[in-house]
Amino acid sequence: MPVAASAAADTAALDKRRNVILIIGDGMDNQQITIARNYLVGVNGRLSLDNMSRRSIAQVLTVDESAPQRVVYVADSANSATAIASGQVTSRGRIATTASDDRDLTSIVKLAAAAGYKTGVVSTASITDATVAAFYANIRLRGCHNPTLMQQEDIYDPAAVDCSADLKANGGPGSIAEQLVNSPLDLALGGGHKHFLHPAEGQSSSLLELAKEAGFNVLTNVQQLDNGPAQQRWLGLFAADTLPVALRGENNRAAEKPKLNLLNRMPWSRDTRVLPAPMRCEANPKFGGTPSLQTMTRRALEKLGGAGGSGGSGGRGFFLMVESASIDKQAHWRNPCGSIGEVEQLDRALDEALAFAEKNPNTLVLVTADHGQAAQLVPAESLFNYFGVPINTPGKIARLHTIDNAIMVINYATNDFSMEEHTGVSVPVLSNNITDLPATMLQTELFSVMANHLQLKPRQQLTEAGW
Amino acid sequence: MPVAASAAADTAALDKRRNVILIIGDGMDNQQITIARNYLVGVNGRLSLDNMSRRSIAQVLTVDESAPQRVVYVADSANSATAIASGQVTSRGRIATTASDDRDLTSIVKLAAAAGYKTGVVSTASITDATVAAFYANIRLRGCHNPTLMQQEDIYDPAAVDCSADLKANGGPGSIAEQLVNSPLDLALGGGHKHFLHPAEGQSSSLLELAKEAGFNVLTNVQQLDNGPAQQRWLGLFAADTLPVALRGENNRAAEKPKLNLLNRMPWSRDTRVLPAPMRCEANPKFGGTPSLQTMTRRALEKLGGAGGSGGSGGRGFFLMVESASIDKQAHWRNPCGSIGEVEQLDRALDEALAFAEKNPNTLVLVTADHGQAAQLVPAESLFNYFGVPINTPGKIARLHTIDNAIMVINYATNDFSMEEHTGVSVPVLSNNITDLPATMLQTELFSVMANHLQLKPRQQLTEAGW
Repeated sequence: MPVAASAAADTAALDKRRNVILIIGDGMDNQQITIARNYLVGVNGRLSLDNMSRRSIAQVLTVDESAPQRVVYVADSANSATAIASGQVTSRGRIATTASDDRDLTSIVKLAAAAGYKTGVVSTASITDATVAAFYANIRLRGCHNPTLMQQEDIYDPAAVDCSADLKANGGPGSIAEQLVNSPLDLALGGGHKHFLHPAEGQSSSLLELAKEAGFNVLTNVQQLDNGPAQQRWLGLFAADTLPVALRGENNRAAEKPKLNLLNRMPWSRDTRVLPAPMRCEANPKFGGTPSLQTMTRRALEKLGGAGGSGGSGGRGFFLMVESASIDKQAHWRNPCGSIGEVEQLDRALDEALAFAEKNPNTLVLVTADHGQAAQLVPAESLFNYFGVPINTPGKIARLHTIDNAIMVINYATNDFSMEEHTGVSVPVLSNNITDLPATMLQTELFSVMANHLQLKPRQQLTEAGW
Repeated sequence: MPVAASAAADTAALDKRRNVILIIGDGMDNQQITIARNYLVGVNGRLSLDNMSRRSIAQVLTVDESAPQRVVYVADSANSATAIASGQVTSRGRIATTASDDRDLTSIVKLAAAAGYKTGVVSTASITDATVAAFYANIRLRGCHNPTLMQQEDIYDPAAVDCSADLKANGGPGSIAEQLVNSPLDLALGGGHKHFLHPAEGQSSSLLELAKEAGFNVLTNVQQLDNGPAQQRWLGLFAADTLPVALRGENNRAAEKPKLNLLNRMPWSRDTRVLPAPMRCEANPKFGGTPSLQTMTRRALEKLGGAGGSGGSGGRGFFLMVESASIDKQAHWRNPCGSIGEVEQLDRALDEALAFAEKNPNTLVLVTADHGQAAQLVPAESLFNYFGVPINTPGKIARLHTIDNAIMVINYATNDFSMEEHTGVSVPVLSNNITDLPATMLQTELFSVMANHLQLKPRQQLTEAGW
């Protein structure tokens, strides 16, 4: 074929490819986005999130493990990621398995791979963490990261897990990390190195060794990520567990309790209370050489969608899930700076996704959150200050100096435990203009939006692929 | 003109009319909508809100009164309604006037009336309350409802207001109620009767008498509302102040503090704590014959837009603002049932608006909130229950029996005062398919969306009308 004809054929093949880039901000409800917008770009500023074309909202659905017909109002990342990845409702803690009767659910990664698409997952958490795992694994509980963590009844651990039914010895698929090694994924980039150091169930080889045998090139730093070989699959493990976050509070401070005394009950003495000192967010020294979510996303897109990568011209396209995980984790720990830094990481990863979609037609970019989180933006001065009595949070607050030269106060008060709760609020959904979204959806419908865009016919393709 | 030609001319005139129905849920953030959806129609159910065509979100903007270049992160209803009604940012407490230098801002009601549109406001609050007032009045503080409330320095009242610059004696427009009487409004329906019993500033006549002189027919019950004369303006005053809400907690219960004891600090004794008993919402006996927001909206649409009403064929169209006010007020008092009932009222009023828009082309239906509120939907069982230690809210919770036969828990914990705070979260914006909305907007841009739909040219029309 002459060069010109070949180039034309390449362009035609390129135009037929369809891609989905799904970006999940864990716990990224509208409070988190507003707080991050105010801090990062100012109240009148715009995040890249704010420049998306379409907006919807997703009602989060959860059921009770012991009585799956019973509704539960607040999700965790395991069941909500299952809803997005497979279109099915389940109970908290479950990874792509049904509540109570423990049937495996088919995720979009497996459907897409069966249909000839490249697939990848990227996260700032361990790549065995709940949100990521729901896209490639089926297991009873999110805690079953590696073979050693499949049964913990004999260990004193309040968060004991029991995935014994999923042990390979019992005919199961093994731990989350083992399932990753056996998955069709073309790449998985994030943290969780420690989970791959364990020997596979019933074997002497470590999961890392098995991953290499399965064709994964193991990448453990930015330099290796930059030079990941195009002809191999990538397993990027850039930290033992969760990746360090980019931002933290000044001197690592989180939200704190105001210091009150008896005098504070008297109107005239209100100024004797001591509020947490205002602070700025600072770079987290532990972040160091950690690859950013933007870098991981860029490399994932180069590999899955680039002309030189395995998803290059002639391929069918790809499905990529990108998670900014620690918006949620840092909110649990009442650290607004940690969450803000993770929203910023997501916003930069979104830039990569949008730049890719600009050059590659038929690329759906979808951004959502899995569930709400505790943080609330509350007044720096109470609305009721004019009553002249001291008014304080019953929880903990952080007071942040902002780009607008004002004080922004974040309240955490869902419980009195060391970690805050999630909330049951509906979550944001944003997309580029490649598709129309209904203005209000169920979280499970996100699966259909993605499957429709990739023209997946669930049943048939799975049967063909033998899943 | 023959009958057929006349009918055709009527249809042509009808098609040229443009209408805006703006529905504001006071404090109706996504937490409030999710809580109401779960309670009223179940987690898989849909409110009429959920069937709207387009979704956006509005960033709420507020500035400091003493230093208007300084950002404030949490709004009140006065400054946020000013943003919607006039497209301008101001400080908390102000009604369509600028922060610090107290210049009057022009609201869409005045612009629309000057351009020949009919105008109306409907609310479940006093029609002199902040959200409503910002659409027709200009005054220093929201508390200046009536002539007697213009100056309170000599009264012991922690919420003392000073609107002396706005007194008629000082060349001002007088109190909010006086400005309503002098406004171009074709109708104002809601509560606030008590504010019209005061004599007008410097006069012996009451505001009610002056309203009648100004051409208002005063309506004080549903029967009068049903028979409001088409040829007169309507002033509906159906309660002394805020209208009673439709729903309340069982035996009038609101959120309560869990009862804890020392034993609760021991893991093995967690069950000795006493959580607030779960409850259902019940009809508020005080609601009685109060006209519902749906009824008021239906009558407003019949008057402003009906063929028999003054906005009938040949008219230019209308602007109508409808407020469900007590979503916010009841959340301040930690009463989720009160808020839920008000979201339901809004949803039924929306049905009226959508039915009208179905029959009348060029009718923009816009739904939004003015600011966020304190309520959070939190887990009925803590996410961390497996630690085996008691975990409780530091605030107050209400536990509701729901239509899905489950328990939904609402947490209020923004402060330790008798009333909760607002939050600074961005607020929902929904519309029918008559216009495109950007996916993310500033709250002030809502003004432009409405003004553009009504083809208003602010400066010119105001000059012509002498405002």
